[in-house]
This record gives sequence, structure tokens and C-alpha cells, in this order.
Amino acid sequence: MIDFKTDNFQPGLSVDCVIFGFHDNELKVLLLKLKNLDFWALPGGFVDKDKDVDTEANRVLEKRTGLTNIFLQQFFLFGKVGRASTDHLDSLEKKGIISSENASWFNQRFITVGYYALVEYSKVKQLTADEISERCEWCAINELPELMHDHREILKKAHDTLKKELNYQPIGINLLPREFTMPELQTLYETILEKPLDRRNFRRKMLSYDILIKTERRRTGVAHKAPILYQFDVEKYQKAIKGGLSQSW
Amino acid sequence: MIDFKTDNFQPGLSVDCVIFGFHDNELKVLLLKLKNLDFWALPGGFVDKDKDVDTEANRVLEKRTGLTNIFLQQFFLFGKVGRASTDHLDSLEKKGIISSENASWFNQRFITVGYYALVEYSKVKQLTADEISERCEWCAINELPELMHDHREILKKAHDTLKKELNYQPIGINLLPREFTMPELQTLYETILEKPLDRRNFRRKMLSYDILIKTERRRTGVAHKAPILYQFDVEKYQKAIKGGLSQSW
Repeated sequence: MIDFKTDNFQPGLSVDCVIFGFHDNELKVLLLKLKNLDFWALPGGFVDKDKDVDTEANRVLEKRTGLTNIFLQQFFLFGKVGRASTDHLDSLEKKGIISSENASWFNQRFITVGYYALVEYSKVKQLTADEISERCEWCAINELPELMHDHREILKKAHDTLKKELNYQPIGINLLPREFTMPELQTLYETILEKPLDRRNFRRKMLSYDILIKTERRRTGVAHKAPILYQFDVEKYQKAIKGGLSQSW
Repeated sequence: MIDFKTDNFQPGLSVDCVIFGFHDNELKVLLLKLKNLDFWALPGGFVDKDKDVDTEANRVLEKRTGLTNIFLQQFFLFGKVGRASTDHLDSLEKKGIISSENASWFNQRFITVGYYALVEYSKVKQLTADEISERCEWCAINELPELMHDHREILKKAHDTLKKELNYQPIGINLLPREFTMPELQTLYETILEKPLDRRNFRRKMLSYDILIKTERRRTGVAHKAPILYQFDVEKYQKAIKGGLSQSW
């Protein structure tokens, strides 16, 4: 049950985290299944009056999922009146997930700051639920369960932001193995963009970014025309994260 | 003097607007000069509990500057502890700009949502100051006066966002005359990006976006090799605003 002193929190403000992982050619997201309820939520929480909002987003993520040292990026402030579902709020109280002392805190108007991160799926080994949830799981973004409040909209906005950022930032260093083929990199892009890409254009454009190293090796276990393995040039990759891709303005 | 009932506002939340205009090959921003004080501020204000944050940003902008129907875009939530300058707050109270009844409201911790817009400089004819400011003026972003609190950081973040957006969104339809030359369009980009661009690359890249119409006309008044005039293809331009430039993913 949630029962805390709310005086220390910045009123009407919460944070929500969209944590993406890439696995089996699917884009997945970390969700918490609420105790005794049929809906799920993004890992989220409140902001201490004495702490930066960014700091609190990281603390919330660690507390809810056990994940530390994640590069969380703020992407949007969700500020509509009526964001919260009164049905969801009612059931949280009825099922005893929120104490009656805290009910008025939860029922005030909230705005929420959305954060997202891309994490290496394989490195997330222990997903721990917290006092309000019974499970913490990766869910494919195309097969989402019922989500609390406007969390589906928050997730979609995070995904849209990610799609746009592919136009000026490199991606993949934590999502692919150290060595990968051009088709594997293309699959990552296609999965995020949710559309097929032309093979030759993809290759040409990706090479023009000048962030890849072509190795002497080829993917083994393929009989005919084994594809060449690439690595990211870490130095150039980091430079592009800061200064933009060489093809951007 | 500001003296209002603060019970109707969402506590600890404000909005700030960065309004860019392009004039004389300079990027400018709308600022308010505070009454009897030596610093300036972005047009900003508070959020009614019953209103969407986006709605309130537009209302604030209209109230402070007289500008209506501006497409304001949210770009960041400024959430650091200690954003506000206590010196600035003190002087606002001392100079009677804030009533003593409102002082505790102003002295609480605030987070602020940053919005920005690009407006046609020539269309902004009447800049009206409000109860706390004596002037509302366009200031060149390279010659800024002292700004309140973290407003300089907010302005910089808005500018950085604009630079990034040039990579997947068209720009210029409200910033240039209906017909313009390629060098004029390039100057707009160079001004926003704060760096020179290669003439041939710029032309090639811009034409590849497929949002321009080449007219039969040339800029007159130039003796030799008068440059061709272009227009935006409004339909394709609007499509690119929604779906991204043809060169983006």
C-alpha cells in the first residue's frame, strides 16, 4: 500500500519513464502490473521539493525497477486537464493500493514529465516489482495491455520522439551486439520506424554517417554470401551523439 | 503591480514563451523589460487549475504581447531546484512589482514549461507591455540584456531545439517573403544554425527535400546573373511538416 507523507512533494507533479528494449526484432517497453488490478502502468512517481526533476526521474526508475545508471531523456510535459482516469483512481483506492490518507493527494490535478531511455535488453536481469505492483515485465509495444490514465499516449509520444531523433542522432550501440551485419542494423531501424526501408538506400545513408567500422569478418553459419560484420566506431559515434550526424545540418 | 488570487493556479508551475523572429538577417526574440528594473524576461505566466498547460501558454502570450494564433511548440520542462534568482525576486518585491500578499506565491519553488514559436517579424506591429513591464521588444539573440532567473538558458535550449528540428522539418514559410532566392534561404539556415554552409551542398540538399517551386522569375536589380526566385510548394511543405522531410527516415 502507498501511504506516505506528501508534504515533501512538489504538488501536482509526477514523472513517468518509458524504458525501451530491443529483443527478438521487437521493440519492447517496461511496464508494471498493478496489484490485484487489470491494468498496467509506466514506472513513475513524485518529485521531492528539494530535488531536480531529472534526479527524481532516475530515483523513481531505480525504485520501481531496480535499474541504475540509465540515460533518461526528458521528452514531453503532459499537461492536459483530465489526463487521469477517475475509474483507475477509484479502483486504486478500493483495492487498498492507496491509503485513504493519501487519496486526496492522488485525486488532485497532476501534470507529468515524460522521460525515455533505450536499454540493452539482455542486461536487465532482475526486474523487481514494488509495493504497488505485482510484476515488472517487458511488453511488446504492439501488444500492450490496458494502461493506466494516459500512459498509452505517453508511450506513443516517446516512440514518436525516438523516430524523429533517428534523423540527427546515431542509435544502436547498446541495442545490438558488438559486431552486427548491415541487415541487422536495418532491422533495428525498421522496427523503431515501423516501416520497411530500401536496402540500398539504407546502406548508402548509413555509411555516409561515417560511424561504422567494416571488419574483416563475416557472419558465419550462412552458406552463401555471408554478410560482412560491422562495429560502431565508438569515438565517431560519441561525437555524433554530441554534434549531430555528418549528414545533418 | 501583480496582485491576484493565486488559489486558482496550479502550484509551482509556470510557462515561458520564446518567440523568434527573423529580421535583417538576424534571429531575434521577444522580451519584456520589467518596470523600474534593469532586467528583462521572456513572456510568461501561470496555469489555471482548470486549463490545459498548452492553452495557458497561448493565453499568457496573448496577454503579454497581444499576439494571437501563434503556433506555440512545447520544447522542455525546466525542473532544476534553484532556477529562480533570489536577487531578482527580492527586487521585484522591493520595487512594488509584486504585492506583499503574492510574495509567498512567487517565492515557492517553480518548474516552468518552455514553449517556442517562429513568427513573421513584419506581422508583429503592436507590441504591448503589461502591468509588470514597461516595454516589449525584439532583441537580437547575440546581444541579449540581463535576463531574469534562468531565462537565458531557456532561450538557448529553444534555439538548440530549433537547430535540431531543421533536420526533419521544413522551415521558412512564415519567415521569408513569398518569393525568395536560394542565397536568401541559405542565409536563414545559416542564421539559425550560426554557421556557414557550403553553397552547392545547401542547394542540392534543399532541392532534394522537394518542397520548392522554381519560378520563371529572377531577382531584379542585379546586373549580372540575377538569381532565380523560388516559392515553397505549400502542399508538399505541409505534408513534410506532418510526415517529415523526404530525406529523413
